[in-house]
Amino acid sequence: MNDRKPIVAQSTPKGTGALALIRISGEDAFTVFLQIVMQTERFKNAPPRKISLYTLMDHEKKKVLDEVTAIKYTSPRSFTGENMIEIICHGGEVIIREIINALIKNGAQQASRGAFTRRALENGKIDLLKAEAIQGIIESTNEPDRLCAQRMYDGKINALLSVKDTILKVQTELDAEIEFGEEERISDTRESGRETILRIISDLEKEIRLREKITNLIGGIRIIITGPTNAGKSTLFNTILGFQRALVHHEPGTTRDMVSERMLIDDHEIKLIDCAGIRETSNDVERQGIIISRSAINTAHLILWVTAANETLSENEKQEIKANVFGKRAIGIINKCDIEDGASKVAIFKEEGITHCLISLKQGKNVDSLLTIVKKEIDFISSSIEMPEILLNKRFEELGKKIMLDLLKADKEWNRTEIAAHYLKKAYSHFEEIFGANNNEEILNRIFDNFCIGK
Amino acid sequence: MNDRKPIVAQSTPKGTGALALIRISGEDAFTVFLQIVMQTERFKNAPPRKISLYTLMDHEKKKVLDEVTAIKYTSPRSFTGENMIEIICHGGEVIIREIINALIKNGAQQASRGAFTRRALENGKIDLLKAEAIQGIIESTNEPDRLCAQRMYDGKINALLSVKDTILKVQTELDAEIEFGEEERISDTRESGRETILRIISDLEKEIRLREKITNLIGGIRIIITGPTNAGKSTLFNTILGFQRALVHHEPGTTRDMVSERMLIDDHEIKLIDCAGIRETSNDVERQGIIISRSAINTAHLILWVTAANETLSENEKQEIKANVFGKRAIGIINKCDIEDGASKVAIFKEEGITHCLISLKQGKNVDSLLTIVKKEIDFISSSIEMPEILLNKRFEELGKKIMLDLLKADKEWNRTEIAAHYLKKAYSHFEEIFGANNNEEILNRIFDNFCIGK
Repeated sequence: MNDRKPIVAQSTPKGTGALALIRISGEDAFTVFLQIVMQTERFKNAPPRKISLYTLMDHEKKKVLDEVTAIKYTSPRSFTGENMIEIICHGGEVIIREIINALIKNGAQQASRGAFTRRALENGKIDLLKAEAIQGIIESTNEPDRLCAQRMYDGKINALLSVKDTILKVQTELDAEIEFGEEERISDTRESGRETILRIISDLEKEIRLREKITNLIGGIRIIITGPTNAGKSTLFNTILGFQRALVHHEPGTTRDMVSERMLIDDHEIKLIDCAGIRETSNDVERQGIIISRSAINTAHLILWVTAANETLSENEKQEIKANVFGKRAIGIINKCDIEDGASKVAIFKEEGITHCLISLKQGKNVDSLLTIVKKEIDFISSSIEMPEILLNKRFEELGKKIMLDLLKADKEWNRTEIAAHYLKKAYSHFEEIFGANNNEEILNRIFDNFCIGK
Repeated sequence: MNDRKPIVAQSTPKGTGALALIRISGEDAFTVFLQIVMQTERFKNAPPRKISLYTLMDHEKKKVLDEVTAIKYTSPRSFTGENMIEIICHGGEVIIREIINALIKNGAQQASRGAFTRRALENGKIDLLKAEAIQGIIESTNEPDRLCAQRMYDGKINALLSVKDTILKVQTELDAEIEFGEEERISDTRESGRETILRIISDLEKEIRLREKITNLIGGIRIIITGPTNAGKSTLFNTILGFQRALVHHEPGTTRDMVSERMLIDDHEIKLIDCAGIRETSNDVERQGIIISRSAINTAHLILWVTAANETLSENEKQEIKANVFGKRAIGIINKCDIEDGASKVAIFKEEGITHCLISLKQGKNVDSLLTIVKKEIDFISSSIEMPEILLNKRFEELGKKIMLDLLKADKEWNRTEIAAHYLKKAYSHFEEIFGANNNEEILNRIFDNFCIGK
């Protein structure tokens, strides 16, 4: 390990804040740090895990970089198992950049994604599944995702282990049969083994669907605002957001690209999307925008269809409502109810069984009750998501798909015992990736590439 | 202070990172923290300034929030002078939100901007100028701004103090003359006093201009890409950026709003702006975009005028180049040189004395040399900024303007000694705001409203 430069990175997010945390780890971490610290004796004498104040200097440029606090961790009692320092500096981007540059100039190297965790793994300080679980907890932007990661962190992977053991058991039975069995008739064991495999396939199918729902929640519950032009979509977007963002303009087709914003509603992460106006258009760019918006509608959790009370329901809008909103969670919002009663719009929403709400964004009428309806929908969407038990993260999901595929092949060839056994073996081998990844450089690279810098 | 709830805030920037730092400060900070910590004895027995590992729990929801490290600071030996804890947790947005919510549920309150520094000020742990300087260092996105804040942090405010003392001296002399002086003729003292005041006015004028230049650098050196439609502006933008961002499309007028991106070039903070195509248009929204782009050109540090070699120079473009680029730092970029030699474009740039560069973005021809020219310009712009010595931050600048105004009035009324003396007194009184702000709630509110949350 002597040939390895210490790694350094900012562990807190980019951007300006009051403070930032920089980590440096490696056998020579202390030597490197001492090159930029003014109070060298203080650092040398500081007991491990005790925080002290230091002035950081770029000696070459003769320039004070910052006054910081820093904590010394001595190997092996650190996150990585190596000598390590956590520097808490002021959170200015220039400061952080200069401190890291100074450390690199004095012998450190920029840490790649997940490099600290990887060293912790190499030094036996953490196991891979736990490391992945931590990354999952960090990245989760929604409760189901976080609960999955938490379950993994707590080591609750019994369901996955049980799938693994069951496949091995059935495969062993098939092997025994190949060795000793009667070839003429399908034995009871083989039949019950097939049932077991079919049950696993169905479990995995269900879990894959659950994971898709969770993946769909990444970045938050997607609420899309759509409907004909000039109905007040951008105004509604801004009203919900509480601040001006989209360009509001009288000319139809203004919101050409989609505008979206992340926000919190009752502690739920929401991605609010203001969609291009749905209408026939001869303009190329606009048509492109409309294609994008159609696909956004398809993946949205909740559709807010905004339409104007003072405009008659066109045959086109009627078709669009039927086509886009059908079978989805949607709220029909009839705006400009201060001008007219919007009876034809009420009728179509009633006909389609869609909750509707008459509002006037201009006068602020009924906006509160609309928000209440939206919140209820969010609660419903959030609580209706069931938790996976086997496929606890994206990587497990991918392996789950491979396992399922091989099990399906095994099932198809069940009567040709050798081939079925071969596919069961293949299915079982995918567990290697999950549990034996520690020894495989390529798998490790793939996993750590998804980690944060500074983690 | 007993009636004051502890304050809590995330001190690191929002967003997802490996780690985040949460601060809690107040007499009851430890009591509140103990409500959510599992290892209560460990925390109670932990010596101050020693970091330890804790599991945080939401006992009400019976849920583990995170495994964190935390440092205990006991009053008065902390940043705020109060009992304080720094919690280093995993950097997921959900985690951070839940920890802060749990602390608030157990008796803390969300800290407002600069609330920690304000408590430090109240407890005599820091003086206001130093606190402002730290905030200045944090916020600075460019070297001159940072150096100003550093100068202030180091207490190098002699120039400002000298202005203050000089005004007082002249004013005292005027007062003496009012009491004892001859009214008939302008005395030597008065004349030299006037010269002194005029010198201060001119110094302040120069400093205000310097500060404007620095303010103009906030968010980075602004480089604007502009020129006629279809010349390859968005492609150049993406080339410089190194990744796809603006919508590239064959239809003229596509980049309707400005697209901009922050980036680093040779350690300089750059704001690269892709501007709406400058052309006559009948479209309302586009015309709006063009007005915005004109004003962006006026405040840019560097203009990249992109034009196509294969299109003849229109009278309109000629006028636009003369009008927009005149007297500014600009590079004329003649794209599509793989199709034609662009002689008419070369001529106009030569005529206007603008550095030009023939490139082909499609073939990647000459792009490197263009980037070299751009980098040279950035170096020039960055190094040509002189440092202020008196007006070290925005607040000083505002007070400097007020002082200058009063000195100008004094100068105008110099022969009416009483009135001149009155304005000198008024000018002097503004220093109260700088040096006596500690006792003025309103001034403090104004100052701290500009601080970070968690600072």
